[in-house]
Amino acid sequence: MSTYRTEKDTIGEVQVPADKYWGAQTERSRNNFKIGEEGSMPKEIIEAFAYLKKAAAHANHELGVLAVEKRDAISQVCDEILEGKLANEFPLVIWQTGSGTQSNMNVNEVIAHRAHVLAGKVIGEGEKTLQPNDDVNKSQSSNDTYPTAMHIACYKILIENTIPSVIRLRDTLDKKAKAFADIVKIGRTHLMDATPLTLGQEFSGYVAQLDYGVKALKNTLAHLSELALGGTAVGTGLNTPKGYDVLVAKKIAEFTQLPFVTAPNKFEALAAHDAVVESHGALKQLAVSLNKIANDIRMMASGPRSGIGEIIIPANEPGSSIMPGKVNPTQCEAMTMVCAQVMGNDVAITIGGTQGHYELNVFKPMMAANFLQSARLLGDACRSFDEHCALGIEPNQRRIDELVNNSLMLVTALNTKIGYYKAAEIANKAHEEGTTLKAAALTLGYVTSEEYDELVDPRKMI
Amino acid sequence: MSTYRTEKDTIGEVQVPADKYWGAQTERSRNNFKIGEEGSMPKEIIEAFAYLKKAAAHANHELGVLAVEKRDAISQVCDEILEGKLANEFPLVIWQTGSGTQSNMNVNEVIAHRAHVLAGKVIGEGEKTLQPNDDVNKSQSSNDTYPTAMHIACYKILIENTIPSVIRLRDTLDKKAKAFADIVKIGRTHLMDATPLTLGQEFSGYVAQLDYGVKALKNTLAHLSELALGGTAVGTGLNTPKGYDVLVAKKIAEFTQLPFVTAPNKFEALAAHDAVVESHGALKQLAVSLNKIANDIRMMASGPRSGIGEIIIPANEPGSSIMPGKVNPTQCEAMTMVCAQVMGNDVAITIGGTQGHYELNVFKPMMAANFLQSARLLGDACRSFDEHCALGIEPNQRRIDELVNNSLMLVTALNTKIGYYKAAEIANKAHEEGTTLKAAALTLGYVTSEEYDELVDPRKMI
Amino acid sequence: MSTYRTEKDTIGEVQVPADKYWGAQTERSRNNFKIGEEGSMPKEIIEAFAYLKKAAAHANHELGVLAVEKRDAISQVCDEILEGKLANEFPLVIWQTGSGTQSNMNVNEVIAHRAHVLAGKVIGEGEKTLQPNDDVNKSQSSNDTYPTAMHIACYKILIENTIPSVIRLRDTLDKKAKAFADIVKIGRTHLMDATPLTLGQEFSGYVAQLDYGVKALKNTLAHLSELALGGTAVGTGLNTPKGYDVLVAKKIAEFTQLPFVTAPNKFEALAAHDAVVESHGALKQLAVSLNKIANDIRMMASGPRSGIGEIIIPANEPGSSIMPGKVNPTQCEAMTMVCAQVMGNDVAITIGGTQGHYELNVFKPMMAANFLQSARLLGDACRSFDEHCALGIEPNQRRIDELVNNSLMLVTALNTKIGYYKAAEIANKAHEEGTTLKAAALTLGYVTSEEYDELVDPRKMI
Amino acid sequence: MSTYRTEKDTIGEVQVPADKYWGAQTERSRNNFKIGEEGSMPKEIIEAFAYLKKAAAHANHELGVLAVEKRDAISQVCDEILEGKLANEFPLVIWQTGSGTQSNMNVNEVIAHRAHVLAGKVIGEGEKTLQPNDDVNKSQSSNDTYPTAMHIACYKILIENTIPSVIRLRDTLDKKAKAFADIVKIGRTHLMDATPLTLGQEFSGYVAQLDYGVKALKNTLAHLSELALGGTAVGTGLNTPKGYDVLVAKKIAEFTQLPFVTAPNKFEALAAHDAVVESHGALKQLAVSLNKIANDIRMMASGPRSGIGEIIIPANEPGSSIMPGKVNPTQCEAMTMVCAQVMGNDVAITIGGTQGHYELNVFKPMMAANFLQSARLLGDACRSFDEHCALGIEPNQRRIDELVNNSLMLVTALNTKIGYYKAAEIANKAHEEGTTLKAAALTLGYVTSEEYDELVDPRKMI
Repeated sequence: MSTYRTEKDTIGEVQVPADKYWGAQTERSRNNFKIGEEGSMPKEIIEAFAYLKKAAAHANHELGVLAVEKRDAISQVCDEILEGKLANEFPLVIWQTGSGTQSNMNVNEVIAHRAHVLAGKVIGEGEKTLQPNDDVNKSQSSNDTYPTAMHIACYKILIENTIPSVIRLRDTLDKKAKAFADIVKIGRTHLMDATPLTLGQEFSGYVAQLDYGVKALKNTLAHLSELALGGTAVGTGLNTPKGYDVLVAKKIAEFTQLPFVTAPNKFEALAAHDAVVESHGALKQLAVSLNKIANDIRMMASGPRSGIGEIIIPANEPGSSIMPGKVNPTQCEAMTMVCAQVMGNDVAITIGGTQGHYELNVFKPMMAANFLQSARLLGDACRSFDEHCALGIEPNQRRIDELVNNSLMLVTALNTKIGYYKAAEIANKAHEEGTTLKAAALTLGYVTSEEYDELVDPRKMI
Repeated sequence: MSTYRTEKDTIGEVQVPADKYWGAQTERSRNNFKIGEEGSMPKEIIEAFAYLKKAAAHANHELGVLAVEKRDAISQVCDEILEGKLANEFPLVIWQTGSGTQSNMNVNEVIAHRAHVLAGKVIGEGEKTLQPNDDVNKSQSSNDTYPTAMHIACYKILIENTIPSVIRLRDTLDKKAKAFADIVKIGRTHLMDATPLTLGQEFSGYVAQLDYGVKALKNTLAHLSELALGGTAVGTGLNTPKGYDVLVAKKIAEFTQLPFVTAPNKFEALAAHDAVVESHGALKQLAVSLNKIANDIRMMASGPRSGIGEIIIPANEPGSSIMPGKVNPTQCEAMTMVCAQVMGNDVAITIGGTQGHYELNVFKPMMAANFLQSARLLGDACRSFDEHCALGIEPNQRRIDELVNNSLMLVTALNTKIGYYKAAEIANKAHEEGTTLKAAALTLGYVTSEEYDELVDPRKMI
Repeated sequence: MSTYRTEKDTIGEVQVPADKYWGAQTERSRNNFKIGEEGSMPKEIIEAFAYLKKAAAHANHELGVLAVEKRDAISQVCDEILEGKLANEFPLVIWQTGSGTQSNMNVNEVIAHRAHVLAGKVIGEGEKTLQPNDDVNKSQSSNDTYPTAMHIACYKILIENTIPSVIRLRDTLDKKAKAFADIVKIGRTHLMDATPLTLGQEFSGYVAQLDYGVKALKNTLAHLSELALGGTAVGTGLNTPKGYDVLVAKKIAEFTQLPFVTAPNKFEALAAHDAVVESHGALKQLAVSLNKIANDIRMMASGPRSGIGEIIIPANEPGSSIMPGKVNPTQCEAMTMVCAQVMGNDVAITIGGTQGHYELNVFKPMMAANFLQSARLLGDACRSFDEHCALGIEPNQRRIDELVNNSLMLVTALNTKIGYYKAAEIANKAHEEGTTLKAAALTLGYVTSEEYDELVDPRKMI
Repeated sequence: MSTYRTEKDTIGEVQVPADKYWGAQTERSRNNFKIGEEGSMPKEIIEAFAYLKKAAAHANHELGVLAVEKRDAISQVCDEILEGKLANEFPLVIWQTGSGTQSNMNVNEVIAHRAHVLAGKVIGEGEKTLQPNDDVNKSQSSNDTYPTAMHIACYKILIENTIPSVIRLRDTLDKKAKAFADIVKIGRTHLMDATPLTLGQEFSGYVAQLDYGVKALKNTLAHLSELALGGTAVGTGLNTPKGYDVLVAKKIAEFTQLPFVTAPNKFEALAAHDAVVESHGALKQLAVSLNKIANDIRMMASGPRSGIGEIIIPANEPGSSIMPGKVNPTQCEAMTMVCAQVMGNDVAITIGGTQGHYELNVFKPMMAANFLQSARLLGDACRSFDEHCALGIEPNQRRIDELVNNSLMLVTALNTKIGYYKAAEIANKAHEEGTTLKAAALTLGYVTSEEYDELVDPRKMI
């Protein structure tokens, strides 16, 4: 009893693991592309293929080119894939043919064989329940299925993970901005002391950044909602029934509950992936914003004694076994690493996007994998940062007051009372002697203690 | 008689070239930042400052904090700057302080001194007509003027150069797509022969790419139209009259005839430049598209004998002194070099964008310079490519016909008549013997010559 | 009976899966960093930690600070890790604290608990066989162990995978260069026909590129061979026995059989990862070279009828079910996707490298993961490309001859005989009439057929 | 009297400004490539062409293919170019043909016309003193001259500007490291307080970074010293006299006093620019290092009251008119902007490097321009940073002492005396009550004041 079965394709015979549903073309790809970890093709792509194959079966049936039994057989396996039941049947890697053909065939083969088994038959025996090419791939080509799967997977992850996660963090920061609305602190420009503002104002800037980022990302969804399916091999739609492209997009929209439509120009949809470039550009913008925010937060939380220390972040893990208050900004670190990754991924996607030749861009799996990684990491990191950091941020009021009150910048408040030169003299004395402004002012005798306290009030400077 | 005059600032005295309008702070910056070519600060930024200073003078006057004479004095010099009359007065480099403070001061100093001269006085003598800080910079800070100048300059160049130039090229390609609508040619996927399409369909894909690109770019304009002015040093608007931010943006909109508005959140507008990141992301997307288009065109024009040769591009310069038909795709080469530059600039801008600290991003001049270079190069390159290449593209009908008729892909048209296996047999024979499909078909006797000609018609496959 | 056990650290109690060796700090990290796929920390890093922990135990023992039983207990578990026996014990992700602290603790905890079990005890019961911190982490800090593990893992993968794989491909291309030494073909510049060269000369350029790339990569090994271990928390080596840093590097060199040494400056080794930036720069250079090579090969293999078709590459999978000769350049596609990824990774690593603050760079896991991915993908892709493409490349002699003989460029060979103007006249006539040079030459009557054949010989032009 | 003269090339007539030495091909390029600022082709490339043309003339003469009078005529004009006398004669832009052909022709035309004038003749009249193609370009092709000029220009700027400037900064930092050898300060990891080190140790890490960077850069010089000249159009060296390639490289080495040699493989030297990719990779590494250093310095100089304030940097320009001690880290900002630019340029160069097709890479001018900009900016920025910042860095001893003495990290020094738990109790009390460790220790009564002072000494912890 062998653990392999023999499968055939137009090139010849291949030995396939007997317990797997995939066929000859999948197995060839496994052997021909031993590059990186097995199974690196993102699972979101496989899931998107399941939606797509099911939708194609329904559209084909509705247009009279596929029997109802075949439609149902295909649909049933697609549902199993969507339920995660066939997760071990997709062993191929990102680094295969640049059209993703072999992953399309992997899905076709698994659907056909699994349907055969579900029909109570043994693989390789009896009349085939479904033909991978003629039935499962009907009215399709790798060249239009893979980019369709890309758009479905990318759109879906943005809607289900990235956008809600960013908004969740945005909402927490907005709550903080409101809660900190009256906390006056020293401002800093060029990393140097500047005029005061409130901690809430500072956080409102972060909220604005994320608002712009989400808006920018949403601006890209329309392009991403357009599907290549129906273009077949080169964009002309050869071998598809009339009305198929519109109908299959409608079916995909129905099954995914997302507003997919057929791409108005299929040539662009196969030969270029500017929609992915565009949408990932917005992810990169979010990475830029999140990097700024996480950087600020870790600098403001630095200390406990020798840093800035204006805010306190949650202590999620032991920072130092002996030193209390050593709370490492680990969520900021994870976030900024994710941001660096997204910026790198943007370059990989950009390069892939430039390289379509004639009717087909052949950097599809690489572009999809980078996009999905960025979208997932940003979403996950925002949720993690929100839950384990942002929600718990508290002002260190004592330190904030100390820094703002100690600041030489406040001297400007005395200008109107005693004039610019005397004010500068006070600041200079305080700077040189390392004293407070008030001490210097009183020593010089330009104001009384009461006058000083009334005039020098950072809350009036915001 | 010296060629220098002595200027003072809070640090001390500086020797300034006697024939220049700039003052102490500009001269310090010249000496302290000898990095790269002198005067590298983009002229678009200086022009934007002129709009901004004029608008601020008008707003300040309208809000009662600047005398009408001063408003007019400032306005007059700003108009001179806009007319290009003072082009030699801005010697500073990109690589100065990251807030662009010194270029702001350069503008302030030049306006004050020039106004003094226009008032009939000698620099350094008599009562100052305008104080650089107190008058020209009134209700402003470097921290809000420079980002305002960035947005004005970036928005303007997109509207005046980039977008119309891309659209111009898009329109030419669209005309070609229509003109080539009936030219059936071989399709290519994976660089390998595929089923046919029309040359017009191929070009329609390029048009779609540029349409998406322009749309993506326009999506970013709203963010870019928001101006930081009124935020002053840290975003709180300290030292500005009430209503100033809204009014000054209105003035800028009026003077530039562009729809600028005040930024709703000034903290974001100073501390981050996500609008620049966002908008340059769209420029990068256009670079990706243009790279694909230019690449396709040069491959299709390759030859004259040993390449693809499906299209003929204009011969703008001698390619080879002896070989006719050696028309180098030089416009494609210029375009793809520009695209690579834009992709590099995107990374520089991305890195700059991540690095705001607290209340101020200090990568402003670098971000502005890269954005303006990208926008200008893409615009110029599109115009050049349009004029010297796209407009003159002609199909090489003989070659196109030869390739499509010679293609083995056409055999698929016989499937329905003689079945898959005989069709494949014909293709195989033709491939192995290097003959045409027709010859192989006739030799094998599966169809007559008339049947072949009727069935195998690439025009029916598009 | 619970499936969890209770572990404690300085923060409090944590529930840990009862069947796992890891402890409280690992479990906290699992829960705090749900970012991306679980277990994404590269296995090469875990393996490197095993070498490192074993070496530290040996050095500590030799320097009198660790009992021999503890040394052996640690070593035994490290050996198990190296044998892959504990692969499921390292669930942490890349996106954790930027110092990799938690993966260091993961290794410490697993070693301590596993040793306890190997000593016949039950976790949580009896005297601890090893303390994770006091014994396994003795004379170490996360801050010096993680960068040490990075260097070990990066060096090792270059030596074991990347370099030999690139050389293997280089050797195949070199054999092809020699085998093709006499095959004269048309040259192409600007994608346009140019003077001839041999196919062997073309391939020799690829060999030269890879030679330079390997040399550049080897140039970076010295920096990468320097280990941070012994620097402990901030680089001063606090809490390490005298001579420890040199000795522990020697032990690592001994166990890995690779020439590791202690870093002369530990401050640099913790606070910056320029060695990783440097070495990945060379990987990126290789990606640039491989991209050029793969691109050329797929263009030269394009066709079968409507492309260049000068070489034939192996048919590894069905390209088209009906069209013979449609051999998609899938290995070229996988290779160029890998190259794009490496170029993107380079940007991620560059950004991470810039961001060290004071005594510690906190982008370590991200930098390590990108480096290891690039090194692995490039190595794997070179092997795959070599085996499934390069080895099988064959010239299409008929097509090569046809193109070179048909070329108008050959007319230059007639210059010396009939002068420049008559030669150009011949070329022009051939170009305009679409005939061969010879036909045009004979029609014009400038040379005889014999003269033509003798003079116009591309083999004399190389 | 017209201000234009008529020039001819193989395409036809062109009107050229009468007062310029350039000819038809230059003028065509000016008109065909109006992309960006005129004259953007780097002046270092023009200078390199002058060396190259002179060397070619000498080699051609020595090999008997160029008369001595022509050699001297060419040499004389080349010397004028090197003296900067003809700076206005090179109006072409980077964004031209990707082989740089037109800049090669620009040089040829200027040399020929200028020599004609130097011979006392009028342009367009009399027998031509030199033919641009036949004499000035003898034994050359654009395809081998431009890459040769790239290598000359890139090598030269590294030797003359970048490397000495980086070393100059490195030497200053090294002096500071030695001067600060005994200044004990708080360490910081994760931006949080850590065990102490000396300021000198911190600076020694910067020195080590720059040492590695210079070494990495020097490692790339060998590849860059190899010249393509002698390869002519496709690398075969068609139309060059025997021994020419070796001789012309020797002449270039002699004239530039730099160790140039002929490239062993000319095919690589034309079709790829991996030497430029490699060398710029090292520039990027330096940018990474310099970014880290400049970042640390600005954070350490932050304040004056509300930042870290451990070092004082020179006040080169007014930071704030009223606030003393507001010294903006402007040199750090210029440096980090330069670093971001270099990282962006690296991507542009990388993309350009990937795109050679067959025998010729056509991204040459873009790659050259980016390399030269990076090399110049890094060199200039290092000199500026050295002179205006690094040289003047002084420790703020009072602040350094305050921070280190105030740190809770010092409690670890008590472990050996009173045990871990009591030490932690002290730290905790100090942290919660915001007091010093000593106050907490004395209050708890675990040590005497004398014991504390003796035991808790940060100098013993480095």
